[in-house]
Amino acid sequence: MDIPPHALLERMLQQKIILQLKDGRVLAGRLLGGDEHMNLVLDEVEEKTHEVTRRLGRVVLRGSNVVSLQAPMGTAAKAA
Amino acid sequence: MDIPPHALLERMLQQKIILQLKDGRVLAGRLLGGDEHMNLVLDEVEEKTHEVTRRLGRVVLRGSNVVSLQAPMGTAAKAA
Amino acid sequence: MDIPPHALLERMLQQKIILQLKDGRVLAGRLLGGDEHMNLVLDEVEEKTHEVTRRLGRVVLRGSNVVSLQAPMGTAAKAA
Amino acid sequence: MDIPPHALLERMLQQKIILQLKDGRVLAGRLLGGDEHMNLVLDEVEEKTHEVTRRLGRVVLRGSNVVSLQAPMGTAAKAA
Amino acid sequence: MDIPPHALLERMLQQKIILQLKDGRVLAGRLLGGDEHMNLVLDEVEEKTHEVTRRLGRVVLRGSNVVSLQAPMGTAAKAA
Amino acid sequence: MDIPPHALLERMLQQKIILQLKDGRVLAGRLLGGDEHMNLVLDEVEEKTHEVTRRLGRVVLRGSNVVSLQAPMGTAAKAA
Amino acid sequence: MDIPPHALLERMLQQKIILQLKDGRVLAGRLLGGDEHMNLVLDEVEEKTHEVTRRLGRVVLRGSNVVSLQAPMGTAAKAA
Repeated sequence: MDIPPHALLERMLQQKIILQLKDGRVLAGRLLGGDEHMNLVLDEVEEKTHEVTRRLGRVVLRGSNVVSLQAPMGTAAKAA
Repeated sequence: MDIPPHALLERMLQQKIILQLKDGRVLAGRLLGGDEHMNLVLDEVEEKTHEVTRRLGRVVLRGSNVVSLQAPMGTAAKAA
Repeated sequence: MDIPPHALLERMLQQKIILQLKDGRVLAGRLLGGDEHMNLVLDEVEEKTHEVTRRLGRVVLRGSNVVSLQAPMGTAAKAA
Repeated sequence: MDIPPHALLERMLQQKIILQLKDGRVLAGRLLGGDEHMNLVLDEVEEKTHEVTRRLGRVVLRGSNVVSLQAPMGTAAKAA
Repeated sequence: MDIPPHALLERMLQQKIILQLKDGRVLAGRLLGGDEHMNLVLDEVEEKTHEVTRRLGRVVLRGSNVVSLQAPMGTAAKAA
Repeated sequence: MDIPPHALLERMLQQKIILQLKDGRVLAGRLLGGDEHMNLVLDEVEEKTHEVTRRLGRVVLRGSNVVSLQAPMGTAAKAA
Repeated sequence: MDIPPHALLERMLQQKIILQLKDGRVLAGRLLGGDEHMNLVLDEVEEKTHEVTRRLGRVVLRGSNVVSLQAPMGTAAKAA
């Protein structure tokens, strides 16, 4: 019943996730990898602001900037 | 009599908790897991602001953004 | 004569303490536990602002948000 | 399928990348090296602001200032 | 001739010190103990602001909030 | 082809570098040494602001304040 | 030719140094000791602001608040 954070990150691989950053930006992208600092690799990244969507492609994020990862609804059942 | 923080986190598993974040946001959700950095996994997350409730679903939170977890009243007696 | 911080924390167990947080909030509650990062478990927590007292119940606080713990006057003589 | 952050950094060597810094600056340059703290070495660095492009040449960046590295589109297929 | 910081902290035990905190507060109190993170235990603590002196009694301070400890003039000669 | 950050720092020894600090200051000086935290020793340091150049002489910089070191153009070929 | 930061700190012992703090304060004092976190012990400390000089005597500084130490001109030749 207990799902540690690293296990959910593994389940989210290849899924579209939404990422909240400390600087207020919100990124959407497909999760390709991560490590114990929550450094993340994302693909097909889009940064959505009020009116504009910027395509950023493949991105490495330093974990210290991450606030939260939001799984798309319904991915919880995917096996690790 | 001494309840270390990690022990209370374990007792809170599967419970609805309220989470205070450093950026001022307040999240409510069911605790699915956590680790020694206070990285957390929550399900059925809702972000409540003055007038709006946003449903975020399943969320991984990086521990460095956490201020406090508030247990719902009355869960203290639940065995670990 | 030398009282290390962790020893005073242990003496404060089950006592009412006042907690100063980095975000300016002041909490009062009974100390149930803590660890080496100064992550704390408190019970019967109240957050007191200018005019309002909010009851928060049982709370886990991440140590990085703690500025100081203030023992109630007169608890110093309690054995560890 | 899992690409850890350090592996993508290695793939990006010698590639032109775009770097987002915590102080808001955006740098473009060729990645020459990096380490586990995300300290980076870049060459042919340009800092682009609204109207001006400053040439900075070879730069060492302390990892704690890095928000994200953006690979140029289409480099993902390069072998590590 | 070389006095490492932890040695001066030990010399200051039982002395009245003045403490500068990162949030701008200035505390005066008698040093009862400390550890390698500069977490401190103080007694008879007073917080002095422009016009008011608040008595805080016994206090545990998290080291990450400390800027500096100022020894009272003339304590340097006290043996460790 | 891969130049790790510490290797470029070694190549920069005795060179004039430009240093960007987190508090916005820009320092120019000759690099005399550094360590794994990017603590740096610089000589003949000058702090250049809009209109004034202050000579600071020999300086130890704590690495946590460093954003980036910029090598003077053309030093890349110097052997380590 | 390579002077690591800790070696320059040792050379600076008993010298008058100027200290830049993160909170913008500038302190002058004689360096009595330090450790690997750049926690420092200073004596005969003076805090100089625009018009006032405050004498602080003996001070322990937590390293995380230090930006830089500036050696007085001409001390470089002193043997370690």
